Amino acid sequence: LNNDTESPLYLKLADALRRAIVSGEVLPGERLPSIRRLADGIKVNTATVVAAYRILEREGWLEARAGSGVYVGPKPPTLGINSPDRPKVDSDASGTIMDEGLWDLSQGRLIIPSGVLDLAAGNPAPDLFPVDDFKLLMNEVLDRDGAAAFGYQESAGWAPFRDALALYASTALGIQAGAEDIRVVSGAQQGLDLAAKALLGPSDAAVIEDPTYRGAEAVFWSRGAATIPVAMDSDGMDLDQLEAALRRRRTPLVYVIPRYQNPSTRSWSRDRMEGLLRLADHHEFYILEDDLLSDLYYGSAPSPATLKSLDRHNRVIYVRGFSKVLMPGLRLGMLIVPPQLRQAFESAKRSSDIATDGLVQRTVELYLRRGYDRQRMDFLRSHYGRVYAEAVRLGASRLEPLGASFTKPGGGLHLWIRLPSPVTATRLHHEALLRGAAVIPSGVYGNGPRNRDDHIRLSFASLRPETVSAGIRIVSEALEKLILESKDPPALSALPFL
Amino acid sequence: LNNDTESPLYLKLADALRRAIVSGEVLPGERLPSIRRLADGIKVNTATVVAAYRILEREGWLEARAGSGVYVGPKPPTLGINSPDRPKVDSDASGTIMDEGLWDLSQGRLIIPSGVLDLAAGNPAPDLFPVDDFKLLMNEVLDRDGAAAFGYQESAGWAPFRDALALYASTALGIQAGAEDIRVVSGAQQGLDLAAKALLGPSDAAVIEDPTYRGAEAVFWSRGAATIPVAMDSDGMDLDQLEAALRRRRTPLVYVIPRYQNPSTRSWSRDRMEGLLRLADHHEFYILEDDLLSDLYYGSAPSPATLKSLDRHNRVIYVRGFSKVLMPGLRLGMLIVPPQLRQAFESAKRSSDIATDGLVQRTVELYLRRGYDRQRMDFLRSHYGRVYAEAVRLGASRLEPLGASFTKPGGGLHLWIRLPSPVTATRLHHEALLRGAAVIPSGVYGNGPRNRDDHIRLSFASLRPETVSAGIRIVSEALEKLILESKDPPALSALPFL
Repeated sequence: LNNDTESPLYLKLADALRRAIVSGEVLPGERLPSIRRLADGIKVNTATVVAAYRILEREGWLEARAGSGVYVGPKPPTLGINSPDRPKVDSDASGTIMDEGLWDLSQGRLIIPSGVLDLAAGNPAPDLFPVDDFKLLMNEVLDRDGAAAFGYQESAGWAPFRDALALYASTALGIQAGAEDIRVVSGAQQGLDLAAKALLGPSDAAVIEDPTYRGAEAVFWSRGAATIPVAMDSDGMDLDQLEAALRRRRTPLVYVIPRYQNPSTRSWSRDRMEGLLRLADHHEFYILEDDLLSDLYYGSAPSPATLKSLDRHNRVIYVRGFSKVLMPGLRLGMLIVPPQLRQAFESAKRSSDIATDGLVQRTVELYLRRGYDRQRMDFLRSHYGRVYAEAVRLGASRLEPLGASFTKPGGGLHLWIRLPSPVTATRLHHEALLRGAAVIPSGVYGNGPRNRDDHIRLSFASLRPETVSAGIRIVSEALEKLILESKDPPALSALPFL
Repeated sequence: LNNDTESPLYLKLADALRRAIVSGEVLPGERLPSIRRLADGIKVNTATVVAAYRILEREGWLEARAGSGVYVGPKPPTLGINSPDRPKVDSDASGTIMDEGLWDLSQGRLIIPSGVLDLAAGNPAPDLFPVDDFKLLMNEVLDRDGAAAFGYQESAGWAPFRDALALYASTALGIQAGAEDIRVVSGAQQGLDLAAKALLGPSDAAVIEDPTYRGAEAVFWSRGAATIPVAMDSDGMDLDQLEAALRRRRTPLVYVIPRYQNPSTRSWSRDRMEGLLRLADHHEFYILEDDLLSDLYYGSAPSPATLKSLDRHNRVIYVRGFSKVLMPGLRLGMLIVPPQLRQAFESAKRSSDIATDGLVQRTVELYLRRGYDRQRMDFLRSHYGRVYAEAVRLGASRLEPLGASFTKPGGGLHLWIRLPSPVTATRLHHEALLRGAAVIPSGVYGNGPRNRDDHIRLSFASLRPETVSAGIRIVSEALEKLILESKDPPALSALPFL
């Protein structure tokens, strides 16, 4: 047990046991030592062992059998693909990474044991966080504002911060907006939730790209609304299919990620954006533009920067989170809201959490005003540009020869890799996990008829140029093995964890 | 214009003009100087004047008349009592105080111009905030945890913080709960929102105390649910009326503030609590216990400490915000959730904002672990105990002789004062505002048939023993004037602002 971190002993023990199971050190069906014996053996309290066993049992790694002991389960926790009864939360930016470095899987979501290379999470590695800058700015704010930083803030957001965000929208996102158009939110996820509260009732439907970010679907479902997936091609959503959907049902909202879409990595063309805006004007729906990454490009800046920048008739609600470009734990985002919806968003925000953390707003205001954000985007573009180039190069040399394919998005933090038939993403996910790398299989992004098991999302957000090759190597070896097996299926016993 | 603060010039100008209107320096119907003339006169940019005028126009203080200029409106913005079409947000703890010290009134809520004594807000004065302690602890957390403090946290809350909260629940609130029962939320308002998301659909109803905190009603309405007000007596809710309501409609949720209720200041008796729990068990509804202040008592600790402490059948969802006892800008609260609802709250939290700010959780964890909270409650009980005693003494000597009456709650931060007929709370509110003190009229707490205009809520949260007398003096003088006028009604012109 590693003693140099501050996490509680029982979590460390659970983590070590999980690693032992994933690595094959202990095998499915194997009986674990009794609580007393393990406690004595590693010199911890029995309560520590009980707590660790209980966590792993809840997660599905272990089974307690009455009167007999605790056993390693027959297979590791699965992703729960195809359980149709409830939203499954994406293991994405807007999924949850626990601070222990694991995925919270209590509900059938992916667990990434520590030591496993994380190609699943869409979040920048913590060692890229501007922690020291933030500490200095935060202390400066506390010295300057004192108690005011800890009082209630205006629900729309602290006024000087909204001024700074209006300037940021104009310079970084190509959007001309006034401070009165801007609303501060507690992260992009809350932005989606407020839009759903403002616009969706239980008899409504929201149109979504197929596939899309699951956290958005979960929000629409939480309002009792249905979601209508519309197919995408390389220019964006199929607008004929969209029009057909609009005719079938009251659809006040169309949710899109126009740049480096999640998970497909596609970007909409300008023509397709203009077409969507014309439809919105004609059919009077609103477009919810989720923009996590439009300014994370690895070449010249794409144009238009955002869909909102083309919005001449106030049909676009723009959401930007600061989780990717800054730090997820801040829980900070912004909306740009059409004037006729201001009141609806005001009510939605008040009833949701009244206002967003004042100290964070004031600190990020200073961060923007001093130009730290421009420095940081330059740094991120340069850093991830190198990671991206390496990932694309290795993907072309190691995955494409095996029959996999992917488009080169030119920005963002993921690749969306199509697998050669008959290899399934679920199998590849498990096989790669056994070899020490976690990816997301496409089944996570679709329910029922849309569920396709033929892509993986490979995120390079937490990689460095020098660790990319380890990730791609693991995925390619897993893929190679499954291709061979599909030609010559092995005995079931050779696949202990599937 | 005051130049010594950091707020933008246009906000300062708007504030100065608002003060001039409230003080009677400029009169209803009076024409204001042209933009150019005012800008030249006080040596600011014309854009500054335009922005200030626009704010005041939006708030309802000014009227622009085409081709003629800008005029002071015929009456100040009102509370919008009785507008039946949408939730009115309470000017309470969970209302919003802007950092400029004003109330955000863009939607017909109360504005408190600076310089006016605030007996309306239910929030502790900022000079009581433990800013220095927090700054030290926050820096300690950043030195210890670095980037981990800025990553995503577990949706249920950072595990060591939940451990600390479980201990806090047991020592401060009389509630035996494990860390697994506890969920960290972004403020009490989010706790209510999650409960509504987890339990209420559009065909449901929630029972509420009459009167109650309006921010709760706004949440239930936002789910499309109805609210059923049930009358209170001095022991709590009328349980016969409650049972009748339960028979009429599907009612999964009963919302109560059992200790120092808002706004009525009443506390439930133990018998009534037990009765409610029996009904919950029998009719299978959940009780949402909103506890802001149960530990802010000014004598011996009341027993039971909380309704949740009596909950033997897992029918109570307990919500505690840290806005009152700590600082509102932290946006931090906790839920204690019955095990069978854990999953529903997990989904609700994820889709709402994924997780709560990590740095704040870690800082408050340290705050609890080091015992700062016990010191702080001792300080607050001592400080507010003196303020409360003075308010009760002056209320008895100055308000009761005029026919007003109030019960002595023995804790909390408000008095709920019944006015002598025919004085209305709306009139008293306006009259006191003109004299420099803001209180909340009871009409704010009720819609339609429940609307009674006969109480004011007088909060002493932002007072000190030495400022209580100024507050009570203003209220008593305003009351005295209205009593005299009710006997000898003045000409309408003598009431410029009503």
